[in-house]
Amino acid sequence: MATEKTRPGGRTERTRLAVLQATLDELAERGYAALTVEAVAERAGIHKTTLYRRWRNAEGLVAEALLLGTEQDWKAPDTGTLEGDLASLTRELVHWFTNPAVSALPTASVSAGFQSEQAADALRVFYADRHERCVDIVARAVDRGEAPDGTDPVDVVRAACAPIFYRLFVSREPVTDAIADAVARSTAIAVKAGAY
Amino acid sequence: MATEKTRPGGRTERTRLAVLQATLDELAERGYAALTVEAVAERAGIHKTTLYRRWRNAEGLVAEALLLGTEQDWKAPDTGTLEGDLASLTRELVHWFTNPAVSALPTASVSAGFQSEQAADALRVFYADRHERCVDIVARAVDRGEAPDGTDPVDVVRAACAPIFYRLFVSREPVTDAIADAVARSTAIAVKAGAY
Repeated sequence: MATEKTRPGGRTERTRLAVLQATLDELAERGYAALTVEAVAERAGIHKTTLYRRWRNAEGLVAEALLLGTEQDWKAPDTGTLEGDLASLTRELVHWFTNPAVSALPTASVSAGFQSEQAADALRVFYADRHERCVDIVARAVDRGEAPDGTDPVDVVRAACAPIFYRLFVSREPVTDAIADAVARSTAIAVKAGAY
Repeated sequence: MATEKTRPGGRTERTRLAVLQATLDELAERGYAALTVEAVAERAGIHKTTLYRRWRNAEGLVAEALLLGTEQDWKAPDTGTLEGDLASLTRELVHWFTNPAVSALPTASVSAGFQSEQAADALRVFYADRHERCVDIVARAVDRGEAPDGTDPVDVVRAACAPIFYRLFVSREPVTDAIADAVARSTAIAVKAGAY
């Protein structure tokens, strides 16, 4: 049974992925506050008692679904320059959070962190994983002489991404590729000057 | 009647402030999703028909209440150095968003922006007002030779504040005075290097 539970492609794993994907779809469509175990069960075509047994409630479903991103094979950009890598990161944020075709889920995920401690914990794990995958950007920049030795790679990633999120969700200002590029350029200059 | 409506200290103005303060108290205690016109009316001791007539619904109440901050006489810090001014800003954010005695309302305000277009608009106006009040920080830094001529003052403010909000509401990482100081120091170095 333990093998069945974790074997990729196994029936239990297929059920798990169907449920978590249905959770993400419900989250994108309705938001955290309106998400119910019943709606996720119906969308996934799986009896709700199975969901209650394994995830207990909507909060448990959302928390595990938000961690699906850590199972993806996302890789940090490698464009040949620090500024290029950071612009690739910031432009990716602009895409995911402003393109109406894809922005509902990432936006609802950040919003869920305000409404659920477990969702906030999942966001913490997800972003820590993304930060970790980005450290090579700064290691390569140090090798190329674009960053001083001892530069904190995660601080650099935070500095590049934070102004995009600030505009999106705090000051509620427009976010465009041009702004993504400007933030990347500013951050690259700051890194070179030893700010991090 | 027009005079009565706007005269500071007048009955209509006192009613308005009582209603908006009750709205902020409800927002802090219950959050945007659970806020009702009835509860605000009861808390303010004013008949709900008055509220419906003037603000239409909970969204209208929250939007106007979030703008109360633009009527406060908040002034940007003036410590004598750019790094000191930025550290004062970032520490102020740490205080308002992490001290349990005061953090419920500012946190609920940012969260409301996810749930209401009108709240998001109000946040935009509020933060634009705060940005505007901070431009002198950079003007003084230019005068002291801490920032190149032509530095964009609002970009500097965004760069200093954004990493605090990023940790609070996106990556859900700890935020402390030490982190506020480190972000201010990094931003001051970046400004000096001409990053903005």
